[in-house]
Amino acid sequence: MDCLFCKIINNEIPAEKIFEDEAFVAFLDIKPNNPGHALLVPKKHTDTLLLTGDAELQELIVRAPKIARAIGEALDYEAFNFIVNNGRAAGQVIDHLHLHIIPRRDGDGLEHFKNRKYEEGEIESVGEKIRAAFHG
Amino acid sequence: MDCLFCKIINNEIPAEKIFEDEAFVAFLDIKPNNPGHALLVPKKHTDTLLLTGDAELQELIVRAPKIARAIGEALDYEAFNFIVNNGRAAGQVIDHLHLHIIPRRDGDGLEHFKNRKYEEGEIESVGEKIRAAFHG
Repeated sequence: MDCLFCKIINNEIPAEKIFEDEAFVAFLDIKPNNPGHALLVPKKHTDTLLLTGDAELQELIVRAPKIARAIGEALDYEAFNFIVNNGRAAGQVIDHLHLHIIPRRDGDGLEHFKNRKYEEGEIESVGEKIRAAFHG
Repeated sequence: MDCLFCKIINNEIPAEKIFEDEAFVAFLDIKPNNPGHALLVPKKHTDTLLLTGDAELQELIVRAPKIARAIGEALDYEAFNFIVNNGRAAGQVIDHLHLHIIPRRDGDGLEHFKNRKYEEGEIESVGEKIRAAFHG
């Protein structure tokens, strides 16, 4: 398997690791949105969030606040974005599940996605299609 | 409690709900990044991810792929961002925990946060501070 994150996990490629336990590693993103931006990754390879089992997602999410708190304490941040990009069109570049933990400050200049507007009646139509898909 | 999402949960304010079970509701964001953009929220009020217990976070995360799959099936999306903004500086506007499920398409024009660069030696220094915070 030629996976960059698997190689980091196996210490075949260096990374600035900040956390490691039996099942997960967190290391600093080398192109951070802000200093301290970390990636939390499961040691067991899984491509995307949608392809990951419930138990592994539960193990992932409970580690997120612990790591955020350490980043916040170390670097004086109180706000964070927790982001999983699932699929290339969503900005996922490495096909190994990773949770971005991005520390934030007032006025840090990071711009969120732009909002759109629904046309008259569109939101109800979209809602109806999605509700139908749950029953499909 | 004057919480907009609690009022939606209690049907005091209308919303385009797409999912509901005993502990969670999902409804469409009225200012979507893309059509179908949904917010998954716990019925029990909790302000932020960092103030939410492990069990509730685990209940939240396992519902996320189920809702994303329904949105994808209904509206023909395969990629998604899963985002929790924690704190005002991170873009959290409503102080009731919510997971953004944002469907994505190639070329939809949504721009991710800009990347920064670490100065020489900075990433190691940041890593050391965070590792120390875990042991503090």
